[in-house]
Amino acid sequence: MPHRLEFWFEFASTYSYLAASRIVDLATAAGVTLAWKPFLLGPIFRAQGWNDSPFNIYETKGRYMWRDMERSCEKYGLPWRRPTQFPRNGLMAARAACVAAEEAWCPAFVRGVYHANFVDDHDIGDARVVGAILEKLDQSASAWLERAQSGESKERLRQQTDAAMQRGIFGAPSFVVRDQLFWGNDRLEDALGWARRRT
Amino acid sequence: MPHRLEFWFEFASTYSYLAASRIVDLATAAGVTLAWKPFLLGPIFRAQGWNDSPFNIYETKGRYMWRDMERSCEKYGLPWRRPTQFPRNGLMAARAACVAAEEAWCPAFVRGVYHANFVDDHDIGDARVVGAILEKLDQSASAWLERAQSGESKERLRQQTDAAMQRGIFGAPSFVVRDQLFWGNDRLEDALGWARRRT
Repeated sequence: MPHRLEFWFEFASTYSYLAASRIVDLATAAGVTLAWKPFLLGPIFRAQGWNDSPFNIYETKGRYMWRDMERSCEKYGLPWRRPTQFPRNGLMAARAACVAAEEAWCPAFVRGVYHANFVDDHDIGDARVVGAILEKLDQSASAWLERAQSGESKERLRQQTDAAMQRGIFGAPSFVVRDQLFWGNDRLEDALGWARRRT
Repeated sequence: MPHRLEFWFEFASTYSYLAASRIVDLATAAGVTLAWKPFLLGPIFRAQGWNDSPFNIYETKGRYMWRDMERSCEKYGLPWRRPTQFPRNGLMAARAACVAAEEAWCPAFVRGVYHANFVDDHDIGDARVVGAILEKLDQSASAWLERAQSGESKERLRQQTDAAMQRGIFGAPSFVVRDQLFWGNDRLEDALGWARRRT
């Protein structure tokens, strides 16, 4: 039996969009079970002394990232439009994904949020945008948004972000297989390979 | 005719070791001509407000990098020993590589310096270490070290580091094909693919 792979993602993160778009097919082909782990980069970046995305703080790195995303989406055959706002506030979507992590439609919801942010250029911080994604999946927007904004849900996302820090996560996407941490969309294949190791 | 690929590397950089170990075979197989471009990350990091390697400044990222290097070297079948000093001073070696960039033995010299740093755990800032690598390649250590420390050589490396900044380079290794910049050992295959594009 392959080991389980934890997929740690942040809805504002460009490279998480790549991983979220690829991971289901690759994990299925590898026979690896996924655990969906939304978390917030904000508190982790603040702990490193950053009050914004490093792609905004470090201009040359940011310029490179936008070009790299264009080329990467072309390589993977993924749609892409540079968002007019970056980073967007993924808090509500992350809370919804957190409470819905065990639902069968959660992977489709996650991809829907990324598509809204990085293809449709919609504000994923807007409840109507998140609600529309839920409705498209035949879920009750009002019921799930209410759950997402409950105290229990807020606490869950806080704890999950703490758990990310405890695992040594410092960026997104990250993958965890047992005690092994892998950072970045470029490491998805390696992480899946590790999950298939018997030992 | 494939386009030429510029390989920008820094001798203190762990991920540059991976790229330097892989690039000759991959470029030969792809029919791509290489230009060897040693440069210094120090001035580029200082321009970003860092006075040390980001792997030392950001501890969790550093811890991750050392583990990632172990796994990466295992994946590529490369020898590896974590150096007892990081980052090491690659200035003299970079000056030597800069003045010898057109020599047929330059690629072997570059690999020799990385091997000294990341396998033998030798101080590549020591002229005797650099001299021994030159002698092993049947080159005169004294003649090349003298050239490396000439005013002309110092100026050349300074200009090359300026040229790196002008290309938008912010880390190592980097690859440049025409106007396309690729950052990181993970992008070597993509950069070679770009060099083979006809348009």
